[in-house]
Amino acid sequence: MPAMSTATTRAEDEVGVVIHLDEDTSGKFEAVLRNVGHLLDELDRSPVELVAHGPGVAVMLRSNPHAGTVQDLRDRGLSLVACGNTLARMDIAPQELAPGVSVASSGLGQLVRRQRQGWSYVRP
Amino acid sequence: MPAMSTATTRAEDEVGVVIHLDEDTSGKFEAVLRNVGHLLDELDRSPVELVAHGPGVAVMLRSNPHAGTVQDLRDRGLSLVACGNTLARMDIAPQELAPGVSVASSGLGQLVRRQRQGWSYVRP
Amino acid sequence: MPAMSTATTRAEDEVGVVIHLDEDTSGKFEAVLRNVGHLLDELDRSPVELVAHGPGVAVMLRSNPHAGTVQDLRDRGLSLVACGNTLARMDIAPQELAPGVSVASSGLGQLVRRQRQGWSYVRP
Repeated sequence: MPAMSTATTRAEDEVGVVIHLDEDTSGKFEAVLRNVGHLLDELDRSPVELVAHGPGVAVMLRSNPHAGTVQDLRDRGLSLVACGNTLARMDIAPQELAPGVSVASSGLGQLVRRQRQGWSYVRP
Repeated sequence: MPAMSTATTRAEDEVGVVIHLDEDTSGKFEAVLRNVGHLLDELDRSPVELVAHGPGVAVMLRSNPHAGTVQDLRDRGLSLVACGNTLARMDIAPQELAPGVSVASSGLGQLVRRQRQGWSYVRP
Repeated sequence: MPAMSTATTRAEDEVGVVIHLDEDTSGKFEAVLRNVGHLLDELDRSPVELVAHGPGVAVMLRSNPHAGTVQDLRDRGLSLVACGNTLARMDIAPQELAPGVSVASSGLGQLVRRQRQGWSYVRP
């Protein structure tokens, strides 16, 4: 059953999870980063991508107090994507972003693109 | 390969995005409407639908300060759906809704229906 | 067309909805439980599962003021899942959970697992 075994491999190994972060309310960054860590533990081989826009983009700045945690999660496989519209609107220069952060034209667009690739979506 | 080409066409042209709005916290309506505008720019031919329930329904009232922006987005293709349960509970009459707003029996039900049709879901 | 009729049956009867609750802001529990009730009315035969983590787990405690409503919804078919990581971190013992609550290793992991089974996701 080659089709079935391919599907299983995809589901477990290649199909990822995209996490939506657009708030910077009290404790939100700590909670989201902690949850991302648990997800990396549990999903092991699946790609996990954090997409930030609006106030959520702050977590991806070099100057953010959580930059060390963000870098640790990146070392464990987390992809980091910031919203280009937000960077333009908030006048954030690319060099202010933490190492490894990529920029998508829009945060919501990226979240839609991933879902169309079959990824799961969570918005903690 | 007619099946494959149909699938591609659907993914790009017909399969939409449903946006969930159920809060009216400070700045939420501005942020969501701005994000919807960016999404309409980026997705071009895909349907985009805003589903509001609870306090989020206020953005779809004629009397809302954002009614002009909502109407502009509708002119650009945005569909507007309000939760019927919320309208009943808050005693909002149909004529208080902005032009073009449709009413679903429940907001969550509509969000589920769209996902079952293959639409992506985002909750800014 | 056996494949198609199977797909239809699954979509209507077996494929569920997973609801994400990780906040305990003012009025959030009331709103989420009311929405879950409307969803159970509307979806009838689909499984509906509430997954709580972080501050959201409080709604699943025996001692919570909403415990009666939670139990009524459970009697109507709602599944209740609490995040094991949260229980460990908050030092909540299993016997503090309301009857019928199951524990997943992580809340986000459970939300991803359900989506990979084809379930819809809503985050009120």
